[in-house]
Amino acid sequence: MVLAVAAALDQRRLSLLVFVSTVFLISAPLSAASAPWTFWPPAPARGDEGCLSWRVMVEANNAKNWRTVPAPCIPYVYNYMSPVWGQYARDVASAVDQMLAYAGTDTAADNGLDAWVLDVDDTCLSNLPYYQANHFGAYDPAAFRAWASKGICPGIPAMVKLFWTLKGRGFKVFLLSGRAEETLAAPTASNLAAAGFAGYDRLILRGVGHRGESSVEFKSAMRRRLEEEEGYRIRGNVGDQWSDLQGHSTGDRVFKVPNPMYFVP
Amino acid sequence: MVLAVAAALDQRRLSLLVFVSTVFLISAPLSAASAPWTFWPPAPARGDEGCLSWRVMVEANNAKNWRTVPAPCIPYVYNYMSPVWGQYARDVASAVDQMLAYAGTDTAADNGLDAWVLDVDDTCLSNLPYYQANHFGAYDPAAFRAWASKGICPGIPAMVKLFWTLKGRGFKVFLLSGRAEETLAAPTASNLAAAGFAGYDRLILRGVGHRGESSVEFKSAMRRRLEEEEGYRIRGNVGDQWSDLQGHSTGDRVFKVPNPMYFVP
Repeated sequence: MVLAVAAALDQRRLSLLVFVSTVFLISAPLSAASAPWTFWPPAPARGDEGCLSWRVMVEANNAKNWRTVPAPCIPYVYNYMSPVWGQYARDVASAVDQMLAYAGTDTAADNGLDAWVLDVDDTCLSNLPYYQANHFGAYDPAAFRAWASKGICPGIPAMVKLFWTLKGRGFKVFLLSGRAEETLAAPTASNLAAAGFAGYDRLILRGVGHRGESSVEFKSAMRRRLEEEEGYRIRGNVGDQWSDLQGHSTGDRVFKVPNPMYFVP
Repeated sequence: MVLAVAAALDQRRLSLLVFVSTVFLISAPLSAASAPWTFWPPAPARGDEGCLSWRVMVEANNAKNWRTVPAPCIPYVYNYMSPVWGQYARDVASAVDQMLAYAGTDTAADNGLDAWVLDVDDTCLSNLPYYQANHFGAYDPAAFRAWASKGICPGIPAMVKLFWTLKGRGFKVFLLSGRAEETLAAPTASNLAAAGFAGYDRLILRGVGHRGESSVEFKSAMRRRLEEEEGYRIRGNVGDQWSDLQGHSTGDRVFKVPNPMYFVP
């Protein structure tokens, strides 16, 4: 019965209670040996509710053209993105569940022209180590290029699963990224292979002729080429930025992978 | 120092700890008098993380064509929407903050043709009492019509603020709703006035000639009429459903107001 009541308290009230109970129960062992506690995650910042609102605004495309994570929300984003205890992996998996529910049990048409388009950065490959080291600060092209050149971005597990499911059903999978072709083609390809994305049909990067185009312009042009010049039908289009999913030739359906780390216009 | 350590524990670990400490500290008073605890809110359901993911999928338009709130998430949605302790009001206010940031300090053009289009149900007026009584179940046209006929939907506070801010800056404000004109025009108009939305420029409801059209078709047609026949420029377009914000003539910018209660295709 006491357990039932404890379960009936909401988290905020619990935290008030725990301030009192913690003093009684763990002050003695802590003062003797505080070291074992230090591996615990940093506290969610006060004001998490406001940062949750902000994150939902980002995902719903209400918050646009932000240059950095709002300073009060940096600890929140840090926690959210944590591979160990964060909600991020769950949200990506949930997005992939939606994609697989949409794909249903369909296999690709026999003509070999049914395709999916996946963005690369923070859709297939995670840049979390870079942005975390950068404290989720402003975009720095040179520093990002140095990071991407290493080719060590981890694969995002749920997206690896999506990738292999689509391939197994006969869909063409095109990876479409705004990364510069001339400098990053080789490390991107080896990174993708190492991260579990082997056997994609094409990796489309930004050639020198498309420098200066916005992401929406460049990606729309590449998708239009796939559709109009090559005859593919884009069944699904997946990206962590709304700019991956807007413009023209957006495909039969778009899916937004969560990303509260940065905004690409 | 102990307080600092307590603050450094994350919520999930805290809840484990509190199971133990609660037994020691509050079992005696509780067994004597448990009544005072009963006004506390119901517990967030286990699995809130999964329901949070689902809600974000809804807001990002990844989850489409769902007919009811998933059963395991009904307690979560109940808590989320609570006017007392829920995150919903904060999220709506956050969306309105984004709208006001976009509007900046601009006033409408002198020609009187700068307009905003706002949806009505769960954008301006809340149907929470109805859906809560309905346990967030499937849409029932007759029951909803009976509810809407009463004209007692509460106004959504942050949207009332937006409405008056836009009016104060000289924008035309059009309210665009799929409610049936012949049966619901009078109660909707009186409800809007009572809920704080007095002085809108036009309330556009679904006339008999538009029965059977999807929400996207009907609303696109009405917005096109405003733009092409009447010369208005839709500066902002606000709705709780993505179907309010897609199609054509969608306006310079769209804003999604949160709504995890139902989906309108």
